[in-house]
Amino acid sequence: MTSAEDTVLAYWATCEARQWESFGRLLADDVVYHLPQTRERIVGRAAVVRFNRDYPEGWHLAVTRAVGSGRHAATWITCVHDGARLAATSFFDLDEAGLVREITEFWPEPYEPPTGREHLVERY
Amino acid sequence: MTSAEDTVLAYWATCEARQWESFGRLLADDVVYHLPQTRERIVGRAAVVRFNRDYPEGWHLAVTRAVGSGRHAATWITCVHDGARLAATSFFDLDEAGLVREITEFWPEPYEPPTGREHLVERY
Repeated sequence: MTSAEDTVLAYWATCEARQWESFGRLLADDVVYHLPQTRERIVGRAAVVRFNRDYPEGWHLAVTRAVGSGRHAATWITCVHDGARLAATSFFDLDEAGLVREITEFWPEPYEPPTGREHLVERY
Repeated sequence: MTSAEDTVLAYWATCEARQWESFGRLLADDVVYHLPQTRERIVGRAAVVRFNRDYPEGWHLAVTRAVGSGRHAATWITCVHDGARLAATSFFDLDEAGLVREITEFWPEPYEPPTGREHLVERY
């Protein structure tokens, strides 16, 4: 069986290549994709493939970190869209066949830091 | 040697327990803590301990997911502060002694979803 890390690397590689059939073959029938920031949930392989396939074009992504063990994996990707650069962090749970059963994904945005900790911090 | 997953579970357990000496013993001397959203970087064990110790009190955290392999690990924690509930996602790189050498951490905030994908999505 493919390792969890290889599975999530293939997930992002097929996504970036717009190879939607191969992407779909990595997903369980009853996959659930959670976006906690917007409280959105996409249920089932067909909907998850369409959600990604229909996302407004112009984006590219690269995996910055991937780590997997057993049925769990996490990735940090760097996404570029219309000149903007954004990170996304994703947590994956695989089923017993090694297919992606749950994805929980976060898209953190830049913000200004609170004051009072400048003495401990460098800005970049 | 302790596994990467055990190390990051101990990182969060000592943080939640305010056991700052034990927390510090998990860190490399030259640990670097990156906060990409605010472009802040905290360098060195003493500064990373102080940053966490001096953070305005009232917070509690629990680990929602942790995954580790070799010298890499990732966690998704759920943090409660003044009644607000926020997720944080963290990627850890350990040094050859198993100490935390780099942490990159994200604090994603809620936002409203774009329109046009309601047909694929459930809200919760």
